[in-house]
Amino acid sequence: MKTRILVANRGEIAIRLIRAIQELGYEAIAVYETPDEMSSHIRIADEAVCLGPGPRSDYLNIDKIIRAAKKSGAAAIHPGYGFLAENPYFAKACEASGVIFIGPSSEIISNLGNKVIARKIMGDAKIPMVPGTANLSQGKEGIREALGFAEKYGYPVMLKATSGGGGRGIRRIESDKDMVEQIPVARAEALAAFNDDSVYLEKVVVNPKHVEVQILADSFGKTLHLGTRDCSIQRRNQKLVEIAPSMIQNKELLDNICETAVLAAKAANYLNAGTVEFLIDSDMNYYFMEINTRVQVEHTVTEMITGIDIVRNQINIAFGKPLSFGQEDVNIRGHAIEVRINAEDPKNNFMPEGGKKVSVYRSTGGFGVRLDGFVYQGYIIPEVYDSLLVKLTVHGFTWEETVGRLRRCLANFTISGPKTTIPFYQNIANERDFVNGDFDTSYIDTHPYIFHYEEDSSEASKLARFVAEIHYAKENPFAK
Amino acid sequence: MKTRILVANRGEIAIRLIRAIQELGYEAIAVYETPDEMSSHIRIADEAVCLGPGPRSDYLNIDKIIRAAKKSGAAAIHPGYGFLAENPYFAKACEASGVIFIGPSSEIISNLGNKVIARKIMGDAKIPMVPGTANLSQGKEGIREALGFAEKYGYPVMLKATSGGGGRGIRRIESDKDMVEQIPVARAEALAAFNDDSVYLEKVVVNPKHVEVQILADSFGKTLHLGTRDCSIQRRNQKLVEIAPSMIQNKELLDNICETAVLAAKAANYLNAGTVEFLIDSDMNYYFMEINTRVQVEHTVTEMITGIDIVRNQINIAFGKPLSFGQEDVNIRGHAIEVRINAEDPKNNFMPEGGKKVSVYRSTGGFGVRLDGFVYQGYIIPEVYDSLLVKLTVHGFTWEETVGRLRRCLANFTISGPKTTIPFYQNIANERDFVNGDFDTSYIDTHPYIFHYEEDSSEASKLARFVAEIHYAKENPFAK
Repeated sequence: MKTRILVANRGEIAIRLIRAIQELGYEAIAVYETPDEMSSHIRIADEAVCLGPGPRSDYLNIDKIIRAAKKSGAAAIHPGYGFLAENPYFAKACEASGVIFIGPSSEIISNLGNKVIARKIMGDAKIPMVPGTANLSQGKEGIREALGFAEKYGYPVMLKATSGGGGRGIRRIESDKDMVEQIPVARAEALAAFNDDSVYLEKVVVNPKHVEVQILADSFGKTLHLGTRDCSIQRRNQKLVEIAPSMIQNKELLDNICETAVLAAKAANYLNAGTVEFLIDSDMNYYFMEINTRVQVEHTVTEMITGIDIVRNQINIAFGKPLSFGQEDVNIRGHAIEVRINAEDPKNNFMPEGGKKVSVYRSTGGFGVRLDGFVYQGYIIPEVYDSLLVKLTVHGFTWEETVGRLRRCLANFTISGPKTTIPFYQNIANERDFVNGDFDTSYIDTHPYIFHYEEDSSEASKLARFVAEIHYAKENPFAK
Repeated sequence: MKTRILVANRGEIAIRLIRAIQELGYEAIAVYETPDEMSSHIRIADEAVCLGPGPRSDYLNIDKIIRAAKKSGAAAIHPGYGFLAENPYFAKACEASGVIFIGPSSEIISNLGNKVIARKIMGDAKIPMVPGTANLSQGKEGIREALGFAEKYGYPVMLKATSGGGGRGIRRIESDKDMVEQIPVARAEALAAFNDDSVYLEKVVVNPKHVEVQILADSFGKTLHLGTRDCSIQRRNQKLVEIAPSMIQNKELLDNICETAVLAAKAANYLNAGTVEFLIDSDMNYYFMEINTRVQVEHTVTEMITGIDIVRNQINIAFGKPLSFGQEDVNIRGHAIEVRINAEDPKNNFMPEGGKKVSVYRSTGGFGVRLDGFVYQGYIIPEVYDSLLVKLTVHGFTWEETVGRLRRCLANFTISGPKTTIPFYQNIANERDFVNGDFDTSYIDTHPYIFHYEEDSSEASKLARFVAEIHYAKENPFAK
């Protein structure tokens, strides 16, 4: 019987994981909630197990997922990103039940998920960090600590949930009044979201670049980096466009950041794939932000520039295999850009378009084009999950070629039914600062005109134009 | 007004060319015959011109195509492969009408298209070649020359049409009797197919490997190679599976072949993209076969391993731009395999399935996967053109990973309606010699069991199984 791996996720990342599992010659077990019955991750898996009606609660149900793994004979579970991916209790439950968790140990996840412990580990290893506090004390004492920190470093400061991550649980504080008001609110939110009301402060790096380093570490002590990614183009700390490698024209700086990332991973005894995130200020100082202990949405751009399959290596590492290559085999070729094509209306505050049917779906392809998706013509977008439809990643030999490819692909994509983020990305792909590789985390706010586009660049009108042109051409074979 | 380029072709290669044109910021003008009205190359082009009802004759009509280019304001024409791609009269007509022909000059095409002239050029440049004759004389004198050649080198010998190419106009001669009978037949066929009844002989290299080298040459004297491809897996001299780089584990030999290819291109004053084809015998001697003066079907595998966009460079070279990189920038990464997914029944002598409707079309994707296609769900395959639906090219860091990816992609592909070559390729992808990288031009004949597969691995049954599994899983949430 073939080795089986259960994929504890849905949507595009479930597809991504199933592909890697099957390419290794293993069988993939999908799980799903009933609102996801139409999802193609069920179709391509070797077997699919329904967890229940959810929504979301069954994808988060540790007990059900481990039982599904046991019953289907899965030797390992891959959590993807989101849901249980960075939940140390899930990793621990896998460990306890004898199922391999594809990721670091529960202890590593726990340490790095707690931002204050993570900062302690990194501080001990002399990793450069943004000045910050330990967990604030409860009550008035904590407010006093916070105001003291603000007095020393000046406003704005960042108030962060200790157990937050992925852009969640972060707020910017501009004044003493703000601080006094926001600390209790942030605590209440953190408790609800992460079951932990601890918060801490960090100095704000004004309009930084967000640069992160992909790490692979095996259980034989080999820790490699796969170069940098720039994820500065964000909206409310959610990444929208991701690029590899960083466009900073300073090889020495980027090499230093990569080496620092390896040191940070080693300091945390890191195992499997992870991402070390940094902020870079306008003076090109860089600061450790956090280590994400999962495969990331944007791992695709790193795969395109290095040729290395991160998910395949995650599985091999979890099965106790050594990395089959060294740092000298990791070479960066060209540039890659990923955009997340969501069923959302960017003009209406990115309102999700769940519940709508994808009436026409024609994707694109060709050289340097990678699609990670799970929808198809006829698919009805569930309202209860996130709105990501497909990740478009393009790769080119030069930056100019890569941007041209991105433009071409976005123009060729046909998705009718829901509104999508495609026209928004088309504007970015044509915007001068982006084309020049010049952007930081203030990009979306400082380029409001990327929200200006005509709705009738929609697919219905494209198809109408197409039909009209054929008819015209038929009647006038040589007409211009 | 944007620069416009007319694409004088159809199907997947038209799509490939349009993509490259648009990525460069130019506009693409499609042409089509009315039986191709449903083809998506019309849809993605910036403008489409109907040439007439054809079939095929209008795609071959030099006059109509040049008029279409003139009327649509096209500065250049890309011929793709097939149709007019290696027709020196077409290149000459472009030159005469002031439209740039994207390819070498008519003179180069003419010289290299004539296999006897090409052999003369290569002989003068000391390029190793299979022993062969000049054009055989007409009538009995030619037969006498042929029998003398066979006596000297032994049977079998190859009888080739001087103006043939791409595997056409070739027959194997086993005896004197065969020779006497076949020469007049071959002449008649060559006259009909190539408007030239010249034929010549070559010694047969028994079960050779077919290895070819991609060349790019600009008008500033720079001639580069992009490494090797192995196209040994052929059926009646038609390539079925193409691999890059060659799996021959002898770096020095492959380097020598690449250097010889550059010398051969220089000897022919070659310009633009071309392919130098070699045969390699079991003693690892290599022999020049021909130079193809077009972009080839299998150029995709070279693009995947080098990261270099061959069509983009063809256009830039034709517009008088220098190559922007040197030989030292051409690095081979990993392995790539291309299979041609055709609407054909391999078990029935690869009978085309034209006229059928593609009732379900779900392609695959993900890391290291490239699709060059033009069909979609609902497409009716015209009976009057070739049966290529989509080229699947996979790339991986190692050969093992690449083969695993090929298997996974073939299994994920869903094409209902016509029979396709997918199950045939699935058998190859699982066959031991192929997996070991051990194949030559005898592969198809010596592995007849690759034609053995169950028809019910078809998509209808896959979908039925999928539906059944969902229902089963719904009723038994934790059933195995």
